[in-house]
Amino acid sequence: MKVLIVHAHNEPGSFNAALKDQAVAQMRAAGHEVEVSDLYAMNWNPVASAADFGSRANPDYLVYALEQRHNYEAGTLAADIVAEIDKVRRCDLLILNFPMYWFSVPAILKGWIDRVLISGVFYGGRRIYDRGGMQGKRAMAVVTLGGREHMFGADAIHGDIGTMLRPLLQGSLAYCGFEVLPPFVGYHVPYIGDEARREVLAQHAAHLRAVDTLTPLSMPAMADFDDQLRPLQG
Amino acid sequence: MKVLIVHAHNEPGSFNAALKDQAVAQMRAAGHEVEVSDLYAMNWNPVASAADFGSRANPDYLVYALEQRHNYEAGTLAADIVAEIDKVRRCDLLILNFPMYWFSVPAILKGWIDRVLISGVFYGGRRIYDRGGMQGKRAMAVVTLGGREHMFGADAIHGDIGTMLRPLLQGSLAYCGFEVLPPFVGYHVPYIGDEARREVLAQHAAHLRAVDTLTPLSMPAMADFDDQLRPLQG
Repeated sequence: MKVLIVHAHNEPGSFNAALKDQAVAQMRAAGHEVEVSDLYAMNWNPVASAADFGSRANPDYLVYALEQRHNYEAGTLAADIVAEIDKVRRCDLLILNFPMYWFSVPAILKGWIDRVLISGVFYGGRRIYDRGGMQGKRAMAVVTLGGREHMFGADAIHGDIGTMLRPLLQGSLAYCGFEVLPPFVGYHVPYIGDEARREVLAQHAAHLRAVDTLTPLSMPAMADFDDQLRPLQG
Repeated sequence: MKVLIVHAHNEPGSFNAALKDQAVAQMRAAGHEVEVSDLYAMNWNPVASAADFGSRANPDYLVYALEQRHNYEAGTLAADIVAEIDKVRRCDLLILNFPMYWFSVPAILKGWIDRVLISGVFYGGRRIYDRGGMQGKRAMAVVTLGGREHMFGADAIHGDIGTMLRPLLQGSLAYCGFEVLPPFVGYHVPYIGDEARREVLAQHAAHLRAVDTLTPLSMPAMADFDDQLRPLQG
């Protein structure tokens, strides 16, 4: 199996980076090939702009998704984007490893999503969800956050964490056709001691070992919708 | 009333920018003071990193939120961030005007949230939600997207749009104490004709005129939770 880990933490000594390092070591020990995109180390540019395009289908008016398709086909898409697209295309499992910022991904990772998951390759028209471009690949989020586990849930103060992560899990990963595995969430990590951290590391290792047996999250199936994407009547 | 519009579109001639321009004109005509942070025009840096800090509480290990507090108090926080904090502090109404990217905000706007909404000023400890730092201010999202309205809703393919926007509306704006008004959503805008666009502009104008009568979204109230943020039993 080929694994791509996209990592987005601004402190190389962080516990979040330790989870990334553990994933690399464990996956390699299990015989998998692992690539890492360490976005801070790469000085990744997260801004989707006209500067991403070496040519233009329409030089006078920027429609970002349209120019993504045009430039990828023309071979004029920015090289940093093409390199990431190639990494995703050759992986079987994509792991996004990040600290929760504002109940979402850090901007540097949002900009990886905005710029890399290009129209035409990852999705397009009705090629979304289980007909998306990444069919046959799996994806998983590995998230660390400051809150305690009891702060998340249907009746909890911040609500359900799966709901908070839905723009990522459904709206980005499943939308492109990835089979989305349950996320691994490390709670309260800035505040816990060494013993508790070892426990989180052990849980993370077990989650990764279970990658072939975890039940993927339920996502929309295109067969349930008509050609206008309206729900088909039972 | 003082209004701050944070705008995040990479095409100045876009329909999304026309909504921003209309908001500026309409709010000024109504006698309000309006400031605009046009993130693409400002070449806004969205990456939360050690480069934001002129001094360090801990030079050896970066905890971003901790250094936000330290540097703001020490007067050593990056000038671009301080300028935005000052704009938010003096506004009564914050409008975030953006195209939906991956069921979320574009990275350049996510990085405005990550870097500007600093710990200590906007939130901290139990100073969240209706006890957050921005109590007394209101906020509203103005969103354009490609999908049609029937693609959003409880039984629709992408689910409820309020749920998709929840990391922004609850997890960012309400979390800091803003009273969050219902978002304005312009559907299918890349594909509609001039007449339909005029209709969306008219709906947007009406939404802004109704700012004092719109019912704010329901958000967690701190009085319903104990000092560990567990729900109080009825």
